[in-house]
Amino acid sequence: MPQSPINPIRPTNDEARKLARSLIAAATFGALAVNDGISGFPAVTRIATGTAPSGEILTLVSGLAAHTTALLADPRAGLLLGEPKEKGDPLTHSRLALRVMAHQIARDDPRFAALRTHWLESHPKSKLYIDLPDFIFFVLTPQSGALNGGFGRAWQLTASDLMPVAS
Amino acid sequence: MPQSPINPIRPTNDEARKLARSLIAAATFGALAVNDGISGFPAVTRIATGTAPSGEILTLVSGLAAHTTALLADPRAGLLLGEPKEKGDPLTHSRLALRVMAHQIARDDPRFAALRTHWLESHPKSKLYIDLPDFIFFVLTPQSGALNGGFGRAWQLTASDLMPVAS
Repeated sequence: MPQSPINPIRPTNDEARKLARSLIAAATFGALAVNDGISGFPAVTRIATGTAPSGEILTLVSGLAAHTTALLADPRAGLLLGEPKEKGDPLTHSRLALRVMAHQIARDDPRFAALRTHWLESHPKSKLYIDLPDFIFFVLTPQSGALNGGFGRAWQLTASDLMPVAS
Repeated sequence: MPQSPINPIRPTNDEARKLARSLIAAATFGALAVNDGISGFPAVTRIATGTAPSGEILTLVSGLAAHTTALLADPRAGLLLGEPKEKGDPLTHSRLALRVMAHQIARDDPRFAALRTHWLESHPKSKLYIDLPDFIFFVLTPQSGALNGGFGRAWQLTASDLMPVAS
């Protein structure tokens, strides 16, 4: 009987770093996992994602959403980026599972206006709600990442592997 | 300035139950959130999903995957089902965020053979790895669900709302 590889993790190389950074740069949405301190169950929801001018990962969320309440109570989160195409086996498409720390950028933060302008360029439909008073940004700072490029192609990445490259 | 709706949750009705059950029945993959008791960060990964002949939600996972280790240590999990199409705003597509309890169906479980046959019918490409000795099924039993059918269309569903309807 065939065996799974004993250690499926490959040594980190520039191919892995480039793939991970391209998944971050291309993502317009992802799956966010947060701790729910009341139930003890992790909760996972779809969020819009983008990047700040600096390359940091951003999300814009409603203050009415349960994930927003959860992030304000506990900034430790997980973020899955890299969506499969409609054709082919979804588990062969590359995806990046990040461990992130969430930092709120409220509407009265000095950075808010610049982030708003930048976000509207990449997410034009968000003009319908970006100015609702409960909407806030979070910067999601990667602590580490698990990159999966398909069966048998897996890498563990550090925070510095995931840092945006200055362009 | 416009306001977000104060309470965006709608009363549960048959439209919501039907939509949630159809998302479960149609899903071939989803985003699984698990507790990582060591780091305290929730972790989120892509998993294959399907249903048992009884309609229960199933996943087939490798014993080498971190989410498998996590589920065996803590069966409380989150599962996001309902993937957006490639066109249009991904946040307007329906999705279902479930709170689930994971129950292992190991290879020596009396149910394993029947689940294997059923899974192969819906996931023919899994024949490449379904017989690797570390692969196991988990039944993911919904405890509750948050259904989002797009901006302003949200429902909170109970376990019984989410139960499969006998066909």
